[in-house]
Amino acid sequence: MSCIFCDIIAGEAQASFVYQDDLCVAFMDTRPLNPGHILVVPKAHSSSLAELSADTGGHLFKVSQILAAALRESGLRCEGVNLFLSDGVPAGQTIFHVHLHLVPRFRGDGFGFKFNPANLIHPPRAELEMNAEQIRAAYR
Amino acid sequence: MSCIFCDIIAGEAQASFVYQDDLCVAFMDTRPLNPGHILVVPKAHSSSLAELSADTGGHLFKVSQILAAALRESGLRCEGVNLFLSDGVPAGQTIFHVHLHLVPRFRGDGFGFKFNPANLIHPPRAELEMNAEQIRAAYR
Repeated sequence: MSCIFCDIIAGEAQASFVYQDDLCVAFMDTRPLNPGHILVVPKAHSSSLAELSADTGGHLFKVSQILAAALRESGLRCEGVNLFLSDGVPAGQTIFHVHLHLVPRFRGDGFGFKFNPANLIHPPRAELEMNAEQIRAAYR
Repeated sequence: MSCIFCDIIAGEAQASFVYQDDLCVAFMDTRPLNPGHILVVPKAHSSSLAELSADTGGHLFKVSQILAAALRESGLRCEGVNLFLSDGVPAGQTIFHVHLHLVPRFRGDGFGFKFNPANLIHPPRAELEMNAEQIRAAYR
């Protein structure tokens, strides 16, 4: 199956690179949410977080810290940074090769999160404890 | 200065924990965007990504991978996962102790990203190259 990110990594598709090492690359998103929007991408094809090795995952985050600092120093408008990752279609994943988004932010840029206001409640502690127990049970 | 996450880590404020190790803790967000919303938090106080050690940052991501897998197995409604982090006030940071959000997602949950549609263009390649050069110059 063809993968645009694998093609970019192989040099068979165009990208504007900002970083490259043995484990990952970073290049400009072609539809930036703000100018300077970067994607940090493992070289090894992993369609999901579950397929991504923990060492590579940790490395992606370290590289993102370096690039977040660079964005703030770059001269591009950057008063803050969002990191985000979408794992799975219901989470908004559209390219099935893991990628971490780095979005430079500034006041009034119009970017943000939307959510169902009905969810913005403080659930009772007993409910949070029950949820925590469900999650703990799933990795023990 | 008081910090609610430092208080939680010190056992002086309540939280519903899902994970704990030498470097970090994870507990339920008290205002979950969806049920099961987890915060992964370094034990050492770091107000921003710039203050966070790279090793701790990498570790937070590895733990997030474990917990994302657990969310999918937990019985909570979880067909996908978003990871996000807000660094700085314009990025939506409200608690100044680094934390990575893990949000379980499902179809129709109403959560997502909003952005200025005017930004959703394909900038010319020359502009992406210029942005990439600005970022590369800032970390070299």
